[in-house]
Amino acid sequence: MTGSGVYAGEFDLEHALSRADKNGLTIGEELQRIGYAGEAQVGSRWVKAAFEIHIEQGPILEAEEVTIGVVSGIQGMRWYDLIFEGQEAHAGTSPMECRKDPVAGAIRVLQRIYQLNEKYAPQGRATFGDLKVEPGSRNTVPGSLTITLDYRHPDAAVLDAVDQEIRSIMKSVCRAVGIEGRVEEIWHMPHISFAPECMSAVQRAAAKLGYSSMEMISGAGHDAMYLAQIVPTGMIFVPCENGLSHNELENAQPEDLIAGGDVLLHAILEMTNTK
Amino acid sequence: MTGSGVYAGEFDLEHALSRADKNGLTIGEELQRIGYAGEAQVGSRWVKAAFEIHIEQGPILEAEEVTIGVVSGIQGMRWYDLIFEGQEAHAGTSPMECRKDPVAGAIRVLQRIYQLNEKYAPQGRATFGDLKVEPGSRNTVPGSLTITLDYRHPDAAVLDAVDQEIRSIMKSVCRAVGIEGRVEEIWHMPHISFAPECMSAVQRAAAKLGYSSMEMISGAGHDAMYLAQIVPTGMIFVPCENGLSHNELENAQPEDLIAGGDVLLHAILEMTNTK
Repeated sequence: MTGSGVYAGEFDLEHALSRADKNGLTIGEELQRIGYAGEAQVGSRWVKAAFEIHIEQGPILEAEEVTIGVVSGIQGMRWYDLIFEGQEAHAGTSPMECRKDPVAGAIRVLQRIYQLNEKYAPQGRATFGDLKVEPGSRNTVPGSLTITLDYRHPDAAVLDAVDQEIRSIMKSVCRAVGIEGRVEEIWHMPHISFAPECMSAVQRAAAKLGYSSMEMISGAGHDAMYLAQIVPTGMIFVPCENGLSHNELENAQPEDLIAGGDVLLHAILEMTNTK
Repeated sequence: MTGSGVYAGEFDLEHALSRADKNGLTIGEELQRIGYAGEAQVGSRWVKAAFEIHIEQGPILEAEEVTIGVVSGIQGMRWYDLIFEGQEAHAGTSPMECRKDPVAGAIRVLQRIYQLNEKYAPQGRATFGDLKVEPGSRNTVPGSLTITLDYRHPDAAVLDAVDQEIRSIMKSVCRAVGIEGRVEEIWHMPHISFAPECMSAVQRAAAKLGYSSMEMISGAGHDAMYLAQIVPTGMIFVPCENGLSHNELENAQPEDLIAGGDVLLHAILEMTNTK
């Protein structure tokens, strides 16, 4: 979503081009290398409305046997780093009661965040996707542990409540375990609602072409999220197998993809032909 | 302990020279590079007895105000990889109840191993020093998580009991959470007892030189552990500040180091002069 973020003014171009992957390769250098660094200025092309088509990445359309998802918005999400700092110590010689073990604190915090999330079921989603341990040696109690948290919920009030509760869990658990705990917010994306005229265009296109459709919310972030900040924007979902994505087992039926493309074309035609 | 392991026949030379660090640099190549790859054959030098001197890496000598630790043996230890395998899924779109989340299983297993270890307090030591997550992406439920466990206890029967209990915890928790769990044993070092004649030599040297001494067990592995398999071996401990080691705060008093060196010299002299 880096390109759409720059287009919408969420980040500046320099920031985007300097983003690096785990190996230190930047977007800017790689675009040069593969010959895709274009010359158009950001914002030089006028956009009347935007549509994005995507597999649902969730199980609902498949379960309901509906072909087209008319996406009404994107749920809010917050990204955090949970940082636990203890003290490195030798695995064999340091008595358990003398340790400042960040792992002991982290597992309690994660357990309590999973429990907290149950209060906001079924829409709350808590994901601990990445972990980093220092120094990461088999026979050393770690000095520090950083765990990422991706938290999502369609209700902004829930996101705010969870934010407060996470901070209080970190504080009380880390104090009890005798380590230092810190919550760093990495990204906060509030709930986005798509343009009603774009939603209607998608709905009418599906009806005209004879595809079943239902309104739904997106659990994932998409380029449409940034574009919605500056132009009328809509999204179209099609079913995918078992709701799986970001995974080699991701699969969608050709006829569903064709239906989605067909709806996309007719929604664009309708928007193009209206004032 | 790689050199002493080769000397004692625990590993062969090729195996040792091919060990690589996280950057892929091998011991053999680095010895060549720094000019320390010697030509002597393994085992070509006869050893009558071996002594090793070390900071205690624990808090006991300092707390007891004793200068010399006469080490009677090294506690047994086992190294494991705990492997949790779930299924990668998108953080925003995968309902919690559909996930196979290895993190959810891992935190329960670690919690139960810490609790198990409390049964064997104060000598049991459970350390989770290194973690590896795949794919390690902030907005993806991990597909797999590997956590190292270093478990130590001076009593071989406890080590065996813990081994069984760890496997049963993994099985029951992973089944309950709906993921796959596997325990891989990486290394198993049984309890080592040092040679009584070496212990007496250390004790007599300390007494003769007027240093206080006490018998103790080592929580850490040392080269002496491998040498003890082939020749009479002993160890001398001196105090270190707060029991800290493997840490930049590691500190020992010069007078304690001198006392330890003095005892080492006299223990060697005694062994050299006996038949």
